[in-house]
Amino acid sequence: MKRYEEVAATIRQRMEHGLYRAGDRLPSIRELCGEFAVSISTVQTAYAGLEAERLIEARPKSGYYVLPRSAPPVLPGVTRPTQRPLDVSQWDHVLNLVGEPGAEHVISLGRGIPDVEAKTLKPLFQQLAALHRRGHAAGLKYDSLAGSPQLREQLARLASSSGCLLHPDDILITTGCQEALSIAIRTLTVPGDVVAVDSPSFYGSMQILKAHQLKAMEIPTDPQTGISQEALELALEQWPIKAIQITPTHNNPLGYTMPEARKRELVALAQRFDVAIIEDDIYGDLAYRAPRPRTLKSFDDDGRVLLCSSFSKTLIPSLRVGWIAPGRYRDQVMHMKYVSTGASATLPQLAVADFIGQGHYERHLRNVVRQYQRNLDVVLGWVQALFPLGTGVSYPQGGFLLWVEVKGLDSVRLNERMAASGIQIAPGSLFSASGKYRDCLRINYTQASSPMYDALVTVSREIALMQAEQAAEAV
Amino acid sequence: MKRYEEVAATIRQRMEHGLYRAGDRLPSIRELCGEFAVSISTVQTAYAGLEAERLIEARPKSGYYVLPRSAPPVLPGVTRPTQRPLDVSQWDHVLNLVGEPGAEHVISLGRGIPDVEAKTLKPLFQQLAALHRRGHAAGLKYDSLAGSPQLREQLARLASSSGCLLHPDDILITTGCQEALSIAIRTLTVPGDVVAVDSPSFYGSMQILKAHQLKAMEIPTDPQTGISQEALELALEQWPIKAIQITPTHNNPLGYTMPEARKRELVALAQRFDVAIIEDDIYGDLAYRAPRPRTLKSFDDDGRVLLCSSFSKTLIPSLRVGWIAPGRYRDQVMHMKYVSTGASATLPQLAVADFIGQGHYERHLRNVVRQYQRNLDVVLGWVQALFPLGTGVSYPQGGFLLWVEVKGLDSVRLNERMAASGIQIAPGSLFSASGKYRDCLRINYTQASSPMYDALVTVSREIALMQAEQAAEAV
Repeated sequence: MKRYEEVAATIRQRMEHGLYRAGDRLPSIRELCGEFAVSISTVQTAYAGLEAERLIEARPKSGYYVLPRSAPPVLPGVTRPTQRPLDVSQWDHVLNLVGEPGAEHVISLGRGIPDVEAKTLKPLFQQLAALHRRGHAAGLKYDSLAGSPQLREQLARLASSSGCLLHPDDILITTGCQEALSIAIRTLTVPGDVVAVDSPSFYGSMQILKAHQLKAMEIPTDPQTGISQEALELALEQWPIKAIQITPTHNNPLGYTMPEARKRELVALAQRFDVAIIEDDIYGDLAYRAPRPRTLKSFDDDGRVLLCSSFSKTLIPSLRVGWIAPGRYRDQVMHMKYVSTGASATLPQLAVADFIGQGHYERHLRNVVRQYQRNLDVVLGWVQALFPLGTGVSYPQGGFLLWVEVKGLDSVRLNERMAASGIQIAPGSLFSASGKYRDCLRINYTQASSPMYDALVTVSREIALMQAEQAAEAV
Repeated sequence: MKRYEEVAATIRQRMEHGLYRAGDRLPSIRELCGEFAVSISTVQTAYAGLEAERLIEARPKSGYYVLPRSAPPVLPGVTRPTQRPLDVSQWDHVLNLVGEPGAEHVISLGRGIPDVEAKTLKPLFQQLAALHRRGHAAGLKYDSLAGSPQLREQLARLASSSGCLLHPDDILITTGCQEALSIAIRTLTVPGDVVAVDSPSFYGSMQILKAHQLKAMEIPTDPQTGISQEALELALEQWPIKAIQITPTHNNPLGYTMPEARKRELVALAQRFDVAIIEDDIYGDLAYRAPRPRTLKSFDDDGRVLLCSSFSKTLIPSLRVGWIAPGRYRDQVMHMKYVSTGASATLPQLAVADFIGQGHYERHLRNVVRQYQRNLDVVLGWVQALFPLGTGVSYPQGGFLLWVEVKGLDSVRLNERMAASGIQIAPGSLFSASGKYRDCLRINYTQASSPMYDALVTVSREIALMQAEQAAEAV
């Protein structure tokens, strides 16, 4: 970290801790030069950075002042999905989003792709190149079906940061988190079964239900605290639910993290009704505050939680290295893993194990999390400034996805209209079995660059145009 | 190829074409020196090699003579599996084989692993290293769900060699052939359905049936011409069969290739009963004679054949690059691919596309196929010399797997007894739903080295010991 970054970080921390509050005058440049033993230009650069982040403002001839932090904007209330098990639809729209990679140099607002150009990834590429160049036989045959022991050891070690005591043998490596979710769901269900899900819910797991003729019971979800336990309990009483599939930490798409107490209650509820929980923790490590939140799995004392995750959101998606900690279902999950794709590719696993073991993973996380957290404030500001009055916006506690609600908007049509300009958002309807949340959209804020700003300007203009057309039609 | 190899190859070819027949005296060393314009030692080395392969023998003071080629040993007759749909068992024994990779420097006789140390693979490792080192963003995000266009173009081009006219869009990339088979079966069935299979049949696809609660209808199979059409027709009349899952070219484990006329008839039969065919072509490119055999897919005029394959047997297993040409089921298979593992890893696909495009794939195939073909003769000789009289052995037309039948043998127990010596074979019972073929074993002949010979000596001694114990017990 450079000197001016250190100075900025300290000031930022003091604001977070309430030492400097909104409206306070900050120490003068000269005072800080003394305190940190740095040059005037270093302090000036630090203050300029904080100004760009909209955390402070310079008042001519007076100094720097702490800006009021915009109140976390939240969605109006708990979501209200249909209160009965539904077939999942929406595949065509999901395919439209995931079928093809975005063209290069276009900012994809729609997909959940991390910053793959972060400099802290470099040791990973070096290790991947070195392993492939060597091409030694051990890494070229079929790997252990459970996955490389080296990687499972590192994962067991990392799991302790989310409150989990896992042995390497409690973990199976998968082809991304998608395979982990897919084999978990297939292990627990047969066609016609009902799975309870948070709502809105990740389209990837919803589509697994569709492909295997399962029904989704969408549970009302609070955009700040997560799935409603009361509604879930009612559903468990009323329907023969086989599993609860949920993303309780840095939820996709809503960004919330369920409070620990509610996580504990959820596991207890699952115990009471004897159902399994499939926990998607793919964004879990991208917490804006240390330590990262605990998983449901950490409260699981009878092996009913199947924890699923991957490095697709923390490192790079195309590695296709994911994992599952399947608890009491280990044998069935191992069988399902074998029949689905056999053993996973070895060399990416070894490269990641090395990357973690040498401390690069934690360094990389610190780097990108700082970037995403700063971007959140910037992009939130942009959305509030550009989008129609009354727009609801989520307030993520980790990850890099924002959920935006514009009353009356048809986000599927919005997407179609923007196709020509090469901008794609994820329409909210993908996140519902029956296509609800059509007035919402999910955007990715891994970048807060000027192309990103331009893209948001284009989106907001198109929305305004659609609203004007709607108003004209209504007359 | 070195000069002495060229000389040996020409002599071998002349024997194959019948120019030199069993018992013939071969040209003298002096004559060949003249014909090939090489040194005496070159010809001597060539003849020594052919002698080691048991193709010729030196008679003192007389010269070199062509040895009688041992008649292709075949299994006694058509297999006789149970004639009703069965649940698949045997997972524990399969897991024993596929759960862990063999220790280094141990020759694994059991698994279907190609020679991953072949020199002609080198450009692949170089390209993989180069692509990973560069780490440019396009290859790091999620790939096209169908797979990289570059690779699909190369695959469409290669398909013409098996008589198939495929467009790149007819092909979807998968995580190895296992995923191709898995999504094909899941697309076509629901739990309780019946799938017809050749018998013996690849344990990997049999276990897919088990995991998804499907029943296997095992069809009698001729070790030279494949699945019995008559028995299959009877089964199709009698049972509600949803799909036929079959490996008609360089069959695993029997090694046969169905004659073209029978392939054509099989497709016609499937049309008459309106069932789909899942064709496993994973060993198809490893043909001992050019051109490689045609696929069932090449006779498919209404899109009912789902062709599945990968580079796990031709290049290296740990690439996990496979594909499926799903015909009329493309949309459902694409959906199933998405929910199973999402888009596949990009860089391995790009490396393979480049390897094929630059002609390395065809060069590599020529290299390893020659090696496997030579090894077959050597290993066949070893098995005939070492194993009990009356041992049946398959006569593969491609690939690198031998099927050995020893009347009265318990191959599962044989495996257990050899565990301490670090030698593993694939017991025949893995290849049957109900554990038939327990007196058979499958061995891999990618190597015909002295450790391989030693391993076969150990296996045959253990078999002799077991037979002696059995005889003693019977007294």
